[in-house]
Amino acid sequence: MKKIILLGATGSIGTQALEVIREHAEDFEITALSFGRNIQLGEKIIQEFQPKKVSVLSKRDAEKLRGEFPKIQVVHGLDGLREIAQTEEGELVLNAVTGSVGLLPTLDAIRAGKTIAIANKETLVTAGHLVMAEAKKYRVHILPVDSEHSAIFQALNGEKRSEVDKLIITASGGSFRDKTREELKNVTVAEALAHPNWNMGNKLTIDSATMFNKGLEVIEAHWLYDMPYEDIEVVLHRESVVHSMVAYVDGSIIAQLGMPDMRVPIQYALTYPERLPLHFKEPFDITRYGALHFEKIDFERFKALKLAYNAGKIGGTMPTVLNAANEIAVAGFLNGQVAFHNIEALVENALNRHDVIEAPSLDTILEVDKTTRAYVKTLL
Amino acid sequence: MKKIILLGATGSIGTQALEVIREHAEDFEITALSFGRNIQLGEKIIQEFQPKKVSVLSKRDAEKLRGEFPKIQVVHGLDGLREIAQTEEGELVLNAVTGSVGLLPTLDAIRAGKTIAIANKETLVTAGHLVMAEAKKYRVHILPVDSEHSAIFQALNGEKRSEVDKLIITASGGSFRDKTREELKNVTVAEALAHPNWNMGNKLTIDSATMFNKGLEVIEAHWLYDMPYEDIEVVLHRESVVHSMVAYVDGSIIAQLGMPDMRVPIQYALTYPERLPLHFKEPFDITRYGALHFEKIDFERFKALKLAYNAGKIGGTMPTVLNAANEIAVAGFLNGQVAFHNIEALVENALNRHDVIEAPSLDTILEVDKTTRAYVKTLL
Repeated sequence: MKKIILLGATGSIGTQALEVIREHAEDFEITALSFGRNIQLGEKIIQEFQPKKVSVLSKRDAEKLRGEFPKIQVVHGLDGLREIAQTEEGELVLNAVTGSVGLLPTLDAIRAGKTIAIANKETLVTAGHLVMAEAKKYRVHILPVDSEHSAIFQALNGEKRSEVDKLIITASGGSFRDKTREELKNVTVAEALAHPNWNMGNKLTIDSATMFNKGLEVIEAHWLYDMPYEDIEVVLHRESVVHSMVAYVDGSIIAQLGMPDMRVPIQYALTYPERLPLHFKEPFDITRYGALHFEKIDFERFKALKLAYNAGKIGGTMPTVLNAANEIAVAGFLNGQVAFHNIEALVENALNRHDVIEAPSLDTILEVDKTTRAYVKTLL
Repeated sequence: MKKIILLGATGSIGTQALEVIREHAEDFEITALSFGRNIQLGEKIIQEFQPKKVSVLSKRDAEKLRGEFPKIQVVHGLDGLREIAQTEEGELVLNAVTGSVGLLPTLDAIRAGKTIAIANKETLVTAGHLVMAEAKKYRVHILPVDSEHSAIFQALNGEKRSEVDKLIITASGGSFRDKTREELKNVTVAEALAHPNWNMGNKLTIDSATMFNKGLEVIEAHWLYDMPYEDIEVVLHRESVVHSMVAYVDGSIIAQLGMPDMRVPIQYALTYPERLPLHFKEPFDITRYGALHFEKIDFERFKALKLAYNAGKIGGTMPTVLNAANEIAVAGFLNGQVAFHNIEALVENALNRHDVIEAPSLDTILEVDKTTRAYVKTLL
């Protein structure tokens, strides 16, 4: 029985993780969990999974839950989230919170010696150098939950790092892959949220449409797999069947593929190094797709990806700026304050204005994150 | 320095293995080799690679070589081949001879404790139960050289056998994949030898056009990976880029892909568990293919594959009959004695006539092989 701490239980990854755990009730137990403001769903989850400890965002919600679940310890806020991440009874922390709030709990969990299943991109994007160093120091595994990074992780299984030539990350291209830059000027929030292949949260679906998501994934892969940016390639793959690939020095390429179903990488992170059966409505049949397409990325069309590569290569605080600016810009787009094609422009503006700080400390990262958000908000 | 014994040095696999060895002269040494009748090429190979021991088919050629290379020990015939396979100085035997003559030397090499890199399909097709049992007993690895089996081997690397759901073997469909059965009646030898993707020997190219090759591979995979036939699937994949796949119980599929270049699986068998760099004229670029297609196999169109599955499922001596009948029929086709579409008919005839013998001994296999050949010859 693996004891799981789930951060971000009511989100897209969180609820799909709960599906996986529900399907393997004899293998997993949730000892602690957190969620933000979705108290209705949160209550149901608590009832079903009976964690010993829960954290929510607001003090008010915490008090409400204490009344309803007197046997459960309820905490709140960032301190609450950090406390949950270190819950003694728990060997694996699945960090599925959205945004850079995921960083501190990850570091706490690493220092508490817990295996990390990381769905929170910002943790590695903004502080990859700190997180990987701590993971090494405390000898904990950082297991990917993203489908692309899970694919790479699986394709690296049993292989030697020194024999890797490059990583090939696939990108669906998101909701607007067939639109020109000109056509992007008139797209709506509803159109942006209609992802062709994946069922994901709103922020991630917009990031997928801009390709900032792929950019963040490139930076994440750089840290997770210790690969120079020159050896990380992105290819457009409309069908989202091949989730990513690893090319080896002998010309062999190992790919992981399957249904575009987030339960697969989530479950693999929870069961690694084992695999458990997973139930699908219908079995995967590669002949059903007819053809799988792979196209070169047009960096002029998908400028966000270029911005991300550049920020990653410069390093230091640049990825923090990229990520923070993007978060505010996407929130602005979802609120109707920012046009879709201006998300990139806002991020580029913030990057151009920033003087990079090399090898930043955690405090510097948090400070740059804060000032970038404040700056981009002034532009909305 | 890995000491290699190469059986079948002048054939398609043999010469490509020599290319690999030439490219990594500091890693490999050929201590012994065999070839059949291609004395001209054989002499060049001896000169370049300086083996200590050589076997050829005929006594006359052996005597000729003794005159030319007085320092090299030269033997001949099946006894010579078997002696070479057991050469003391040699840790890996690459068995790249064509036809069922490859069986006895493989068993000899296993009993001499040598790692086997197996390119000779007939060894496993006709005597898989004996070969795998001996390999287990003598604790030797049987490493695949076929691109499909190498792909499966690589996709299994680091994974647990118990977590495998099924094997998915890809088939290019060969030279005539787009012809109807009706159109097959008028095809020529030259047309059959024009394989769309792979550079292979004549026998193999014809087997690829009939799909008997894929059938033999299914039987081979059954033995190599201990998989029931129900869990081995064949899909038509025109581009020969994805060399085969393994589906796991959690819905993940791991595939090995790359250029259709036999040097890759040959080298992997020689270097396993390491990978060494391999030089290509141009690097693999998946976007160059545009689209990869995967189609269901029509077993009525590719009846040879159905015959092979049936023979495999019945087991015993049936695969021996399938293989022996096919060898004679293909030789008949290459000689102009048999029409292309009658290769299948001859094999089916031999299978229908045969009363299966369960768990055959080596003598029984050799006897059935002999009588089947004799029978099919009477039909030419």
